[in-house]
Amino acid sequence: MKIYTKTGDSGLTTLIGGTRVPKDHIRVACYGTIDELNSYIGLVRCYAISSATDTQLEEIQQLLFAIGAVLAADPEKSNMKLYALTTSDVKFLEKAIDQMDGELPTLKHFILPGGSILVSTIHIARCVCRRAERLVVQLASATSVPENVVIYLNRLSDYLFILARKMAKDTDTKEIIWHAR
Amino acid sequence: MKIYTKTGDSGLTTLIGGTRVPKDHIRVACYGTIDELNSYIGLVRCYAISSATDTQLEEIQQLLFAIGAVLAADPEKSNMKLYALTTSDVKFLEKAIDQMDGELPTLKHFILPGGSILVSTIHIARCVCRRAERLVVQLASATSVPENVVIYLNRLSDYLFILARKMAKDTDTKEIIWHAR
Amino acid sequence: MKIYTKTGDSGLTTLIGGTRVPKDHIRVACYGTIDELNSYIGLVRCYAISSATDTQLEEIQQLLFAIGAVLAADPEKSNMKLYALTTSDVKFLEKAIDQMDGELPTLKHFILPGGSILVSTIHIARCVCRRAERLVVQLASATSVPENVVIYLNRLSDYLFILARKMAKDTDTKEIIWHAR
Ligand code: B12
Ligand code: B12
Ligand code: B12
Ligand SMILES: C[C@H]1O[C@@H](n2cnc3c(N)ncnc32)[C@H](O)[C@@H]1O
Ligand SMILES: C[C@H]1O[C@@H](n2cnc3c(N)ncnc32)[C@H](O)[C@@H]1O
Ligand SMILES: C[C@H]1O[C@@H](n2cnc3c(N)ncnc32)[C@H](O)[C@@H]1O
Ligand SMILES: [Mg+2]
Ligand SMILES: [Mg+2]
Ligand SMILES: [Mg+2]
Repeated sequence: MKIYTKTGDSGLTTLIGGTRVPKDHIRVACYGTIDELNSYIGLVRCYAISSATDTQLEEIQQLLFAIGAVLAADPEKSNMKLYALTTSDVKFLEKAIDQMDGELPTLKHFILPGGSILVSTIHIARCVCRRAERLVVQLASATSVPENVVIYLNRLSDYLFILARKMAKDTDTKEIIWHAR
Repeated sequence: MKIYTKTGDSGLTTLIGGTRVPKDHIRVACYGTIDELNSYIGLVRCYAISSATDTQLEEIQQLLFAIGAVLAADPEKSNMKLYALTTSDVKFLEKAIDQMDGELPTLKHFILPGGSILVSTIHIARCVCRRAERLVVQLASATSVPENVVIYLNRLSDYLFILARKMAKDTDTKEIIWHAR
Repeated sequence: MKIYTKTGDSGLTTLIGGTRVPKDHIRVACYGTIDELNSYIGLVRCYAISSATDTQLEEIQQLLFAIGAVLAADPEKSNMKLYALTTSDVKFLEKAIDQMDGELPTLKHFILPGGSILVSTIHIARCVCRRAERLVVQLASATSVPENVVIYLNRLSDYLFILARKMAKDTDTKEIIWHAR
């Protein structure tokens, strides 16, 4: 089977469950942006990170596909058994945040995103995660989305923020504070 | 002539044909996102790729400008002769896909985007291409857009997916499969 | 205090001034995209640039936070004294553009975005800047936004274009012209 099926050449695509929707449907934007986020996390994994962090990021990539499947399913038509995110998936992020945060100086100001290629790339991933969250919140205002999906994305951007700070610290990269005028 | 003409300081801009539209018009988002995609393809070309692939990507960059011009023209006002994408432009991508795909193991699962900086960057470009496609599909639902533009973008994201896989193979980068839970 | 306050788990967030809005509100997209732009500028600063350019980019990052604060404030509820962009902030960009442009050959055609990792990353930042501008223009059509914010973003993308050209020239990177067919 060819990779290009041409079934989307008309601008329509097929959700899990068989419903045909235009590609500019908010649902498609949601899982498309999760895909973009996933690609940035893949990029982060290519830079010098510890194998413990790498394992966390692979777990996150796997879960983003689970989220993608949930978002790609028409809630009214699909009867496919899909993995629903659990409270432990959220806890997994919180535990990782707490662990890293414990090693960091308390923050009382915003910091300029940047400092090294690795740290900057994590900040970009953080922003794409928040872009995905905004779209999923929009979808959730129109139809039912599992609550844990929104919570997971909210926590994931905080995880990425703390990861950026942790990677900066581990590489002696100075944090620059924002000075409001 | 200065690069900054200040004509857009009010939030309006000029389409080919002279029509003034606000910058948040969907048409402007379309060619603006094609520009973003084009920049990512430019980035991909900076990493270690064969000169044959580089030539393909330059051709794609040139065509993205042709697409940009078509999208920037007011169909009701412009009488500028613009290059319309042809079936051979789409075939060019299909031939390249088939050639690369022939060297790749058949895929029966999703793969995690990532593996190397080059491969990850191609996946990001793929996602930006799909973001552009979503916007162009939205534009096409409101006004007439040459059919080949949508088809070209649809095929281009498949080309980028196969290119990512091919670059992974050429550099012995392992593909990680998504395991649905 | 933990970084994750959980106050956004429901999909709502708090503007400066105390108003609760859904995260898919256009205002949130505006400062969220300014954040994404800021992260790309942080990334640009990690590559080989002169310290004069680095100082300009840090100033720009600081101002993007000032813009973020203005955009995050509910104009009807907030009475916080926020820095309003001035004409000199715009002039700062224009002076930098003029200085760089003076050293560059006149352009009579579009150039393909790319050439080196640094140059490509600046082009991506330019496109994200224009994406932010489109959103801010949309916000300004619904509510009052300080005029200088739109002007600053408009000029910033021109600054980034000229910076990309200047960095290309300084590193003997060839510019490739777009040839309309
Ligand atoms: C949602 C979705 C996505 C999501 C990812 C899935 C997710 N969960 O987040 C996103 C948007 C990221 C995506 C991307 C792509 N997708 Co997709 N996707 C779908 C969709 C709508 C549902 C798949 C799903 O999640 N099912 C839920 C899981 C639990 O069910 P499953 O049956 O076990 O899913 C398995 C197969 O569907 C899949 N699979 C089986 N054969 C193949 C072959 C290929 C080439 C791929 C990529 C996957 C694949 O592997 C899954 C896990 O085992 C299907 C179409 C449909 N309506 O079913 C297309 C579909 C599977 N995708 C397809 C394609 C081509 C792609 C892309 C290559 C497109 C591109 N150019 O970017 C990429 C590949 C990304 C990658 N990293 O591998 C094609 C595959 C065609 C083929 N040759 O078999 C399909 C059938 C759509 C179509 N008709 O064109 N996709
Ligand atoms: C569509 C468009 C774009 C598209 C690209 C074009 C495409 N086809 O995809 C996008 C959105 C990517 C773009 C980007 C930019 N653009 Co533009 N764009 C236009 C627009 C609306 C139409 C141009 C077009 O495609 N014409 C169709 C072709 C077939 O016709 P053409 O007449 O032969 O086009 C030639 C010239 O227009 C152009 N050209 C001539 N002189 C100059 C000077 C400069 C500096 C540039 C960049 C181009 C340029 O070269 C073309 C090919 O030969 C015009 C405004 C208008 N309404 O005409 C502005 C315009 C050409 N752009 C302009 C600018 C400043 C830019 C950017 C620098 C903005 C930025 N900060 O990012 C970048 C440069 C990108 C690059 N890589 O070089 C200015 C140029 C001002 C000047 N000094 O002459 C214009 C006139 C708008 C304006 N009034 O401010 N743009
Ligand atoms: C706008 C805004 C942003 C903007 C940036 C600000 C800007 N000007 O562009 C953006 C969208 C980029 C942003 C990002 C983040 N933000 Co914010 N942001 C806000 C918001 C809505 C207003 C802040 C502001 O600009 N005030 C105007 C300035 C002039 O007033 P100020 O009182 O002097 O501001 C000072 C403090 O607010 C801030 N500050 C004080 N303590 C802390 C602690 C932390 C951890 C941080 C990051 C900042 C911070 O430092 C400012 C300068 O001195 C507040 C919530 C609110 N309604 O107040 C949240 C808030 C400050 N943000 C918060 C968080 C968590 C973040 C992120 C980590 C989220 C993420 N995962 O990406 C990032 C960090 C980015 C960074 N580079 O440091 C939390 C902080 C929670 C805490 N532990 O104290 C708040 C309180 C929201 C909340 N309830 O969750 N944010
Ligand atoms: C730190 C600040 O960022 C804003 N915020 C919360 N979630 C998002 C998102 N997905 N995108 C952009 N901004 C967001 C809120 O205003 C919060 O207070
Ligand atoms: C692989 C799956 O991706 C979805 N799909 C097709 N086109 C796009 C796009 N432009 N953006 C996001 N998702 C898309 C369809 O649901 C397809 O089946
Ligand atoms: C160079 C051309 O880019 C278009 N233009 C101006 N501002 C933006 C923006 N924020 N995003 C996308 N395109 C824009 C106008 O049509 C201009 O003429
Ligand atoms: Mg949050
Ligand atoms: Mg497709
Ligand atoms: Mg402009």
